[in-house]
Amino acid sequence: MTIQELAGLLNGEIIGDPNIEINGIEKIEYAESGQISFIANQKYLRYETQTLASALIISASHTPQRTDVAYIKVEDPYAGFVQLLRVFFPDQTTYPPGVHPQAAVDGATIDPESYVGPTAVVGEGSIVGQNSQIHAGAVVGRNVRIGHNTVIYPNVVIYDGCIIGDNVTVQAGAIIGSDGFGYLQRQTHWEKIPQLGIVVIENDVEIGANCTIDRATIGETRICQGTKVDNLVHVAHNVIVGEHTVIAAQSGISGSTRLGRFNMLGGQVGLVGHITTTDNVIVEAQSGVSKNIPKSGRYFGHPAKEHGLALRQEAAIRQLPDALKELQELKAKLRELEEKLLMKQTS
Amino acid sequence: MTIQELAGLLNGEIIGDPNIEINGIEKIEYAESGQISFIANQKYLRYETQTLASALIISASHTPQRTDVAYIKVEDPYAGFVQLLRVFFPDQTTYPPGVHPQAAVDGATIDPESYVGPTAVVGEGSIVGQNSQIHAGAVVGRNVRIGHNTVIYPNVVIYDGCIIGDNVTVQAGAIIGSDGFGYLQRQTHWEKIPQLGIVVIENDVEIGANCTIDRATIGETRICQGTKVDNLVHVAHNVIVGEHTVIAAQSGISGSTRLGRFNMLGGQVGLVGHITTTDNVIVEAQSGVSKNIPKSGRYFGHPAKEHGLALRQEAAIRQLPDALKELQELKAKLRELEEKLLMKQTS
Amino acid sequence: MTIQELAGLLNGEIIGDPNIEINGIEKIEYAESGQISFIANQKYLRYETQTLASALIISASHTPQRTDVAYIKVEDPYAGFVQLLRVFFPDQTTYPPGVHPQAAVDGATIDPESYVGPTAVVGEGSIVGQNSQIHAGAVVGRNVRIGHNTVIYPNVVIYDGCIIGDNVTVQAGAIIGSDGFGYLQRQTHWEKIPQLGIVVIENDVEIGANCTIDRATIGETRICQGTKVDNLVHVAHNVIVGEHTVIAAQSGISGSTRLGRFNMLGGQVGLVGHITTTDNVIVEAQSGVSKNIPKSGRYFGHPAKEHGLALRQEAAIRQLPDALKELQELKAKLRELEEKLLMKQTS
Repeated sequence: MTIQELAGLLNGEIIGDPNIEINGIEKIEYAESGQISFIANQKYLRYETQTLASALIISASHTPQRTDVAYIKVEDPYAGFVQLLRVFFPDQTTYPPGVHPQAAVDGATIDPESYVGPTAVVGEGSIVGQNSQIHAGAVVGRNVRIGHNTVIYPNVVIYDGCIIGDNVTVQAGAIIGSDGFGYLQRQTHWEKIPQLGIVVIENDVEIGANCTIDRATIGETRICQGTKVDNLVHVAHNVIVGEHTVIAAQSGISGSTRLGRFNMLGGQVGLVGHITTTDNVIVEAQSGVSKNIPKSGRYFGHPAKEHGLALRQEAAIRQLPDALKELQELKAKLRELEEKLLMKQTS
Repeated sequence: MTIQELAGLLNGEIIGDPNIEINGIEKIEYAESGQISFIANQKYLRYETQTLASALIISASHTPQRTDVAYIKVEDPYAGFVQLLRVFFPDQTTYPPGVHPQAAVDGATIDPESYVGPTAVVGEGSIVGQNSQIHAGAVVGRNVRIGHNTVIYPNVVIYDGCIIGDNVTVQAGAIIGSDGFGYLQRQTHWEKIPQLGIVVIENDVEIGANCTIDRATIGETRICQGTKVDNLVHVAHNVIVGEHTVIAAQSGISGSTRLGRFNMLGGQVGLVGHITTTDNVIVEAQSGVSKNIPKSGRYFGHPAKEHGLALRQEAAIRQLPDALKELQELKAKLRELEEKLLMKQTS
Repeated sequence: MTIQELAGLLNGEIIGDPNIEINGIEKIEYAESGQISFIANQKYLRYETQTLASALIISASHTPQRTDVAYIKVEDPYAGFVQLLRVFFPDQTTYPPGVHPQAAVDGATIDPESYVGPTAVVGEGSIVGQNSQIHAGAVVGRNVRIGHNTVIYPNVVIYDGCIIGDNVTVQAGAIIGSDGFGYLQRQTHWEKIPQLGIVVIENDVEIGANCTIDRATIGETRICQGTKVDNLVHVAHNVIVGEHTVIAAQSGISGSTRLGRFNMLGGQVGLVGHITTTDNVIVEAQSGVSKNIPKSGRYFGHPAKEHGLALRQEAAIRQLPDALKELQELKAKLRELEEKLLMKQTS
């Protein structure tokens, strides 16, 4: 495709030769001649002079540095890049409908347009909707409901009774509906509390690889519509994660906590149990949230606090070794002053 | 069942109408008319006035606020709730005995009363005891011993030679017996140290979903009786976890460390290798333990320290930004005083 | 074997009876009569007087405490121990070549010398090299290339198009090639960015149990030669991990970050995205790396800083509660002095 055509798709302004032919798309540091790339992050500006790319998608505020490269100016270069990905890479995630002869689906209802791979298992009483994929090695328990256009990747496990919506993607190895971690402390041992609830994954949710989402003690653990969960995240029993929330890898949410809508958790964040966050809360990576967050905004630290306050404390700690020295100097000086004063008095 | 009957089961005192019929049990914020619920945590007191529940289990010290609700007073309302769960929810975790035709169990000895699901694999020389369950997709290696009444959930992997006791539950996706992480540092590369030991899981242990418990270099990695491990926990080679210890999600224990009995680790805790903790140690969430803990008690922080000390340090850090300002003011004042003194001397 | 023979293998110096017969090897605290053990770590010195071992491998600098034990002095006792492990334990990780009848390998090319276990799946267009093992329940997607002498343990998932080198080991449950976590923020929802790249695992790499290594958005996520990754580690899209780097359990590396060669990450370390580290960088457990590390050395903390600086800050925090008291005392003293001075002036 020509720069002219691509700029048309992106609704962008061309700087340079509109007739250059583009046959692929790549990150700027790896791009070769004939490919288009993009600059969306200041850190990648330094590649502009050296890239082999024939074209670059840039922001309106960026001034081109090269004359041998065609530029397309757009409002959001990264969004433009994503749009062109779909042009240059055909979708390869389709699978032929039907149940593989090495699957085990006795007593389940599988829509004939859906795919069930080899060694996949769907239990008695479970229902798989239209145009969904249950990949090899995935194990779906009994009485599970899976919606339309949903993809369950290999070796995912969905326990009995859980409900998965439409347009949901569950990456490989994720476990949905394992027992919540609940025990009564007895004199000599821990007594298991039966975990009798389910997990509900609403529409348009993505769950990352090797996540664990525990079933509720009673009632539901619920991941609300449009929420995206990265890999190796732990969601405990009876947690509710609000709509359109984003949770980065290796974060953990303790039992009965409720996250609001449009929250964003960085990587390796932890939340204690039985707390709530309001909408539009951002918690930075590795923070530990120990209390309700009733006010939208950005938080970090152990325990997590408002961003400005956390920054001030961090800056203060950086000054601390010097401040301790000053304190000792001040002490010495004060003593000296006292002695001088004393001498004057006694002189 | 009537309030009268339920109070009899719980050995509790009735306040209100003993003849109310109860047909289910639910958390207080979701309970509907005809259901019983409970208040065990101060945070849920605010639901008392608005709950639709027909009955509430409460503690002896709680004064009922409603006259249209029947109350059952007991010593431990949460334990009472757990007891009633078993009344209202029949056990649904039973499976018919026998080996599914799509399982692969050549050369293994499976008790005829045990269940082996479709696509489960049990290797040569392995033994599965009475009344146990090996669920779909679980892979049990060669020469593994699994006891009685033990449940291995879907897609669990148990490597060759490991030993699993009686009444053990391993949630889905957990890996037991993977190689310990051991290499010798050579001039140009890392040389793998063969990992030749096993993992022993004693009786009454529960292992969470997607945990990883590595085999010993030689000898054993051992999880002792009655211990409960939450999801995504990592236990390295040659670790010993004492009896009745509880480990919350995403914690990690490095090689050759030994935890005492009745320890409790919060979520995302880390322990370095080659250390020991005594009995009755509590380590709070996200702490990092870098030294032996020879004294029972509560610890937290990076590195973990005694709870009181950690709290004092945290409080001090909160005061730090103000203290730095005070320090500068003091410095200015002292300079001023010095100058005054100097002026007097020279005057 | 005799001490004489073992000392010959280790090229070590014998102290004691060279004719003692040794029939096994064990850790010092568990060793029994007839077994050899070792002391490589100061923490285990205390076992020397009480061990039942008949022989001990020690370092040249160690002075034997026992006369009823034979000693072998070597340069590196732990390396000596590892060498003898291979003598006393035969390799048990071999499997007969061939594809199990309960595997599903239609359209894949499997070298006849390689092993494919029951319920393993290898997709269309994929190639498995010589002398490799694809264990039970592992799912290899379409158009995957797996090299020679590579072991894929049970229930591993390798997504379409990924490339795995020679002499690679992937422990059970690891997920290679899951979608990177990338979304565009739209007004009302998150729009998925297609993840079209692959993962490349170079030769001599080991990947731990239940790790997740995401495919690139475009291009590659790459784990370079000789690198060793512990359990439950997360590697995001487009990350490059340099050669011979070691990553301990539960660490996470965010998108597009590049680690240098011979890096060592402790457990539960996190790195933000789009940064680089140079060669020979050590990051201690639980640290958070938020910036490029252009200088070799040891780092720790939140955010990670040079080791010496981090230690000074930690020491300062320990002194902080006392320093705050001193500050108040100083303030009081200064006030007193001012008053004295004032009195003198007015007197």
